[in-house]
Amino acid sequence: MNTCRIVIDAMGGDYAPDEIIKGAISASEKNPAIFLVFVGNEEKINTLLAGSKLADHRYEVVHSSQVIGMDDKPKAAMEEKPDASIIVAANLLKSGKGDALVSAGSTGATVMVSAKILPKMAGVERGVLASVFPANKNKAEDPGLSIMLDIGATLHCTASQLVSFAIMGNQYAHHVLGMENPRVGLLNIGEEETKGYENLVEANQLMKDSPQINFIGNIEGKDIMSGIADVIVTEGFTGNIALKSIEGLAEHAVKTGKQVWNKNLLSKLGLTMLSPVLKKLKRRLDYSEYGGAPILGFSNLVIKAHGRSKAKAIMNAILLAAQSVESKLVSAMEVAMKEYYLSMFDKDKKEEN
Amino acid sequence: MNTCRIVIDAMGGDYAPDEIIKGAISASEKNPAIFLVFVGNEEKINTLLAGSKLADHRYEVVHSSQVIGMDDKPKAAMEEKPDASIIVAANLLKSGKGDALVSAGSTGATVMVSAKILPKMAGVERGVLASVFPANKNKAEDPGLSIMLDIGATLHCTASQLVSFAIMGNQYAHHVLGMENPRVGLLNIGEEETKGYENLVEANQLMKDSPQINFIGNIEGKDIMSGIADVIVTEGFTGNIALKSIEGLAEHAVKTGKQVWNKNLLSKLGLTMLSPVLKKLKRRLDYSEYGGAPILGFSNLVIKAHGRSKAKAIMNAILLAAQSVESKLVSAMEVAMKEYYLSMFDKDKKEEN
Repeated sequence: MNTCRIVIDAMGGDYAPDEIIKGAISASEKNPAIFLVFVGNEEKINTLLAGSKLADHRYEVVHSSQVIGMDDKPKAAMEEKPDASIIVAANLLKSGKGDALVSAGSTGATVMVSAKILPKMAGVERGVLASVFPANKNKAEDPGLSIMLDIGATLHCTASQLVSFAIMGNQYAHHVLGMENPRVGLLNIGEEETKGYENLVEANQLMKDSPQINFIGNIEGKDIMSGIADVIVTEGFTGNIALKSIEGLAEHAVKTGKQVWNKNLLSKLGLTMLSPVLKKLKRRLDYSEYGGAPILGFSNLVIKAHGRSKAKAIMNAILLAAQSVESKLVSAMEVAMKEYYLSMFDKDKKEEN
Repeated sequence: MNTCRIVIDAMGGDYAPDEIIKGAISASEKNPAIFLVFVGNEEKINTLLAGSKLADHRYEVVHSSQVIGMDDKPKAAMEEKPDASIIVAANLLKSGKGDALVSAGSTGATVMVSAKILPKMAGVERGVLASVFPANKNKAEDPGLSIMLDIGATLHCTASQLVSFAIMGNQYAHHVLGMENPRVGLLNIGEEETKGYENLVEANQLMKDSPQINFIGNIEGKDIMSGIADVIVTEGFTGNIALKSIEGLAEHAVKTGKQVWNKNLLSKLGLTMLSPVLKKLKRRLDYSEYGGAPILGFSNLVIKAHGRSKAKAIMNAILLAAQSVESKLVSAMEVAMKEYYLSMFDKDKKEEN
């Protein structure tokens, strides 16, 4: 059995370390190949593990004395807290003592620590933060997932960086989300190839010419949730705005709904009858089902779980991380990047002749 | 009584000219100051007016023989169809034969025709397309409105162009939407002043220093629908992506809802009971209530009504246009722009000394 050594930032997140440890134990029960490397306050972690059924040979604890909090500025915190759990965790990956990392701590710090400490994947210039969310693909029971990248690691991107995001996202969708031939779309303000900024026009052309991806062309904001693309490629600035706009509307809709239907008894009764349906809808929009945001482009997969993650979300993030190790995700991405560069080289050569 | 001469592109939109004429007649019934200038196929328009109660002294018809359709490329169409209704309409404004323009035709063509034909407002470099939508401000019955600009006329903007959008949006919110002291926010990826692209950092600083606006700082995508800002300033590319992302999620939610609750009888019954509530919600999200997208920055207000507008949406767009004329919106914007330039000049002078 291949062992997947998943490094866990036990101190990151609103419910750390309790819910983090609980989720990790559940993950190890579900997948016997998982070996857990907990990073954080040794005493606290050991106390929490003492009462559990987790066997000694299934885990180790690496002590770290500091934590980067949600309010810390990532850059300053990296200098001031060299023994922070996320930094110690990333260094374990770098030195080959772990295969993937899961953290529910500060997004900014996790992205920055990954970028500063982990070696880049061959052929990749910039790391990328991705978001996996349920889109309107199939029937209600099986909504299907889409992945959007970048959502904030690299604000402004060159065309070739965008292509590398497409290639990585494509491999993630295939190996981790289980899609056969993911459809890749470029987020833009119109479907025509000539729309948008210059880098987007160029990226459109490069992606169209890439045999490594199944490129469906530009897509618009309205298509993000429609499920027409499995992989949505975008600059970090745009991705951040789009994703947060969607999250904001979802919150707004819930509030508006509550305001309106608190008004009368008949609607309350109707609401009670609808409740099983609403629960299904809620589950479908629940981030804890989807295992967090992958950070791609480095020697190892890093998964940023939501700061509000409880045990279940952490479990799902760890299971996804293990799946990425078992499916040799990073090697597959590197092979695809290499193929892309070779095909570009061949194209250049043909044009020369 | 001040007469507001509203020029109507009678041929633009999915339901033109029938619903356009109907809506215009309703608007003139509601506001006796409105004088309607219909532009389009004279014969068709006269036939539709023949059966109406619209008095002869309340309107005129200006013939145009061509129409720019939704599928026409705006740039090519402007050359190939010099007698298109939207072009004739804009030229009427330019020559002082109308005070404001309403069209439900192609957005691209309306924006481009405005930019090519209408004189710019003093102090404004670029025209701007705005969107007015219901945000989560107050109680359910009175949702309140927000205005976002630019949503696609100018993809990339300089800092000072963004400030001019803020000043124009502020005046629109005050004079047309009736807000006392609108709160102006800059759409960005974080609240800190140093976030985002350089032009946004600079715009943040300029807006903070502008006594002409009540600047609340950067806001994020999640805040668009939350109602914390009355005027949301953004580059056209970002605004387009944000707005369409929100529209897309709304559509997605409706589809998902239908899929899920079509499944069982009990939820159908619940849905029936909820139906008055859902109708209220729907009305709150119905664009026809809000009168379309203002195009600002020119000598006269142009309102782009939704392509799917029926009579009611057209009526609301015309009433808004009339209100902008009655409240001397464009002069107010020019005064505010002038004040802004003077305050910048004073600031420079102080720094010199």
